[in-house]
Amino acid sequence: MERATFADMVFLLHQGELPTPEKRKLLDSILISVADHGSGAPSCATSRLVASGNRQSLSAAIAAGVLAIGDEHGGAGSLCMEMIAAGIQRAAKESLPLEETAARVVAEYRERRVNLPGIGHRWHSVDPRTAVLFDQARASGLAGDGIRFISAIETAVKEKIKPLPINVDGALAAVLHDLGFPPAAGKLFFIIGRVAGLSAEVQEEYQREKAMRIRIPVVYDGVPPRSLD
Amino acid sequence: MERATFADMVFLLHQGELPTPEKRKLLDSILISVADHGSGAPSCATSRLVASGNRQSLSAAIAAGVLAIGDEHGGAGSLCMEMIAAGIQRAAKESLPLEETAARVVAEYRERRVNLPGIGHRWHSVDPRTAVLFDQARASGLAGDGIRFISAIETAVKEKIKPLPINVDGALAAVLHDLGFPPAAGKLFFIIGRVAGLSAEVQEEYQREKAMRIRIPVVYDGVPPRSLD
Amino acid sequence: MERATFADMVFLLHQGELPTPEKRKLLDSILISVADHGSGAPSCATSRLVASGNRQSLSAAIAAGVLAIGDEHGGAGSLCMEMIAAGIQRAAKESLPLEETAARVVAEYRERRVNLPGIGHRWHSVDPRTAVLFDQARASGLAGDGIRFISAIETAVKEKIKPLPINVDGALAAVLHDLGFPPAAGKLFFIIGRVAGLSAEVQEEYQREKAMRIRIPVVYDGVPPRSLD
Amino acid sequence: MERATFADMVFLLHQGELPTPEKRKLLDSILISVADHGSGAPSCATSRLVASGNRQSLSAAIAAGVLAIGDEHGGAGSLCMEMIAAGIQRAAKESLPLEETAARVVAEYRERRVNLPGIGHRWHSVDPRTAVLFDQARASGLAGDGIRFISAIETAVKEKIKPLPINVDGALAAVLHDLGFPPAAGKLFFIIGRVAGLSAEVQEEYQREKAMRIRIPVVYDGVPPRSLD
Repeated sequence: MERATFADMVFLLHQGELPTPEKRKLLDSILISVADHGSGAPSCATSRLVASGNRQSLSAAIAAGVLAIGDEHGGAGSLCMEMIAAGIQRAAKESLPLEETAARVVAEYRERRVNLPGIGHRWHSVDPRTAVLFDQARASGLAGDGIRFISAIETAVKEKIKPLPINVDGALAAVLHDLGFPPAAGKLFFIIGRVAGLSAEVQEEYQREKAMRIRIPVVYDGVPPRSLD
Repeated sequence: MERATFADMVFLLHQGELPTPEKRKLLDSILISVADHGSGAPSCATSRLVASGNRQSLSAAIAAGVLAIGDEHGGAGSLCMEMIAAGIQRAAKESLPLEETAARVVAEYRERRVNLPGIGHRWHSVDPRTAVLFDQARASGLAGDGIRFISAIETAVKEKIKPLPINVDGALAAVLHDLGFPPAAGKLFFIIGRVAGLSAEVQEEYQREKAMRIRIPVVYDGVPPRSLD
Repeated sequence: MERATFADMVFLLHQGELPTPEKRKLLDSILISVADHGSGAPSCATSRLVASGNRQSLSAAIAAGVLAIGDEHGGAGSLCMEMIAAGIQRAAKESLPLEETAARVVAEYRERRVNLPGIGHRWHSVDPRTAVLFDQARASGLAGDGIRFISAIETAVKEKIKPLPINVDGALAAVLHDLGFPPAAGKLFFIIGRVAGLSAEVQEEYQREKAMRIRIPVVYDGVPPRSLD
Repeated sequence: MERATFADMVFLLHQGELPTPEKRKLLDSILISVADHGSGAPSCATSRLVASGNRQSLSAAIAAGVLAIGDEHGGAGSLCMEMIAAGIQRAAKESLPLEETAARVVAEYRERRVNLPGIGHRWHSVDPRTAVLFDQARASGLAGDGIRFISAIETAVKEKIKPLPINVDGALAAVLHDLGFPPAAGKLFFIIGRVAGLSAEVQEEYQREKAMRIRIPVVYDGVPPRSLD
């Protein structure tokens, strides 16, 4: 408590050792990058909805927001870490360069018509957060096979499909891999960071909004009225 | 399993005895009345939102919907049961008729500017579910002080404020009281019944909808862009 | 509310039609069979633990118990329904009798060293609940390919491995299949039934026990005390 | 992401401004002090129990642990912040010195036989974390009425009852008050910090333990076997 920061504590709890200042800086950047993404994200909207119906439990509102985090929301980092770990292992086993392995992985995902996790962005052609994370990792000598492999994936995508950026999920996946974390960490650190955002959303909902204010408009499209006798 | 119904089991688990057929019928009616209220209710919308972001866990989606149930959503039954239990106890202690006690309770709530739980409805001037529940209770000789007291509240409200119906929360509160349940049962049986509805909502969301389809539109109204340095 | 039971409502919500009395009876039996299994089951213990630390929210305690339900606890029914659905489809596609298909499935699970879902029981050599469910299904003419296939699995296991009974998960999986439900129903109906049990556990914990009474004894086996400087 | 730490982000999200380095240091200390307290705490035990029954969702396990956080577990900070805020407001309103107000508050809690939140510890006669937090606050000039009031409470307890230390909940309550946070922050920051610990517990449970390994021994003490006919 006297010298360490919370990021040190997060690192210590998950790896059993305190991080170097450079590793701590990267972890801080990762937690910051996922903390909040506006009230419309499923996790945040869920927390607010629960705070609207149940104002007796801050825990309930935050926990519900956490439950909205899955492979589809906040889970791309874990899926990308699995792809990176498998790719690097395969390169070693088959004595292939990372570039060649990445090209094969891209071809296989394409054949299976599955999106590559960590690649592409709905609006940006470059994700600015990726550059920040990779610059920090390179400047501190912590960039390793994770960043190399995801960059090789990016290159292969550009050559075979079209130019698509490494998004923030891909960037944090590569960096977490290079920091020595297993794939589950992609989701766990998303949760740790996002809980700070959920807490702030819930604090605002309690302070500023009335209960039951959120109404979701729904249009019924099922069977017409009928007798069930 | 050979003769009992699920409502028998619910009763047995909470009171330690199987119900008579008449009591079972009332419990069935109560569970049915709260099972579903459209996808726009906070509990249902929460379950769908979680199913949209996290498609790896049916449990997570249903649990999140349960978390939206609180005093403001699904909790009026418990609050009304507390009012009924306190009113009946007070009538006995102060040797007052239930009607006089109800009149005093209405006056006190009014003075404190607190809504009477179980009274009034946004659209209906009569709640049809109340008549069904009370008729069933009376026909089977199970109507007791609970129904008498909430009816006295309704009369006092009509005389002192304006005609307002006993809504479904008030009706199930009175009937659950007369069946011998404590106030917490108002919320517990709402949860048991509603989980059937949440399950059906989640089943439909998984089968028919794509992940991440739900976007909540949000307008930011905080401080304008600024430098944080 | 006037004639239907809660099991009718559960069926209606999930299939869009009211059940026949025979189908309703089977659904009642299934919901009863999973409602409670003692306070030591992970779902029940979780609800009690949460009620011990957080006494402001009945919803939180029940929701947490639901979260403990997964493939490993309460999920065998869904896994078994998937096996049954896949087996019947394969028999049709490859024009094989169900018996022969079952024999191949058993051989394949054995080769992959995966347990057959719905088969075997820690203590019973016969699970009495299976007989009740199957008798009810057969007596009402509702027994179909689901019961036939799981019985063929049981026979193949007896011949190739050793006599092992169809347990309650296997029995409800077969019956739910024959009632026309998809595999997810195995988990959903487990949740609907178990919530009744969780509610009763939480009611007792609030009424009878002090907060924070549950202490889980833990023995630390990590690294010894050390300086982190 | 380039200069800020995660504690900066947490502060920014809840107060709308970045903290000074001294404020950030205090927030780091608070988050560290609540992050983990061993696997036996209700929140941690709940997360592990859920991870034992449901291995399909990291979110479910962490969310369940959050649900165990309430007034009784992790909530003392919020309760103490309410006492501090009310005490300081009362001193101002009644033009009383903080010391005299604290003496009255202690007398009133004693009369109502309610424990003073933030005071006393099961094992320690001095809580070492309190000294660290208060020294940091004083050294950076951030100690204010919060620390003064809780210290006055400690003095009044010593004089009227017996010497009891300010525990970590009381210390973080006083410091959070002096940092300008409302009472809800006591629970919210406990949750943010503890989620890091829950994440590490869940990571270990998934990596090292088998599913369904946790059995809670239960002794039934209800009615003896009987016929329910």
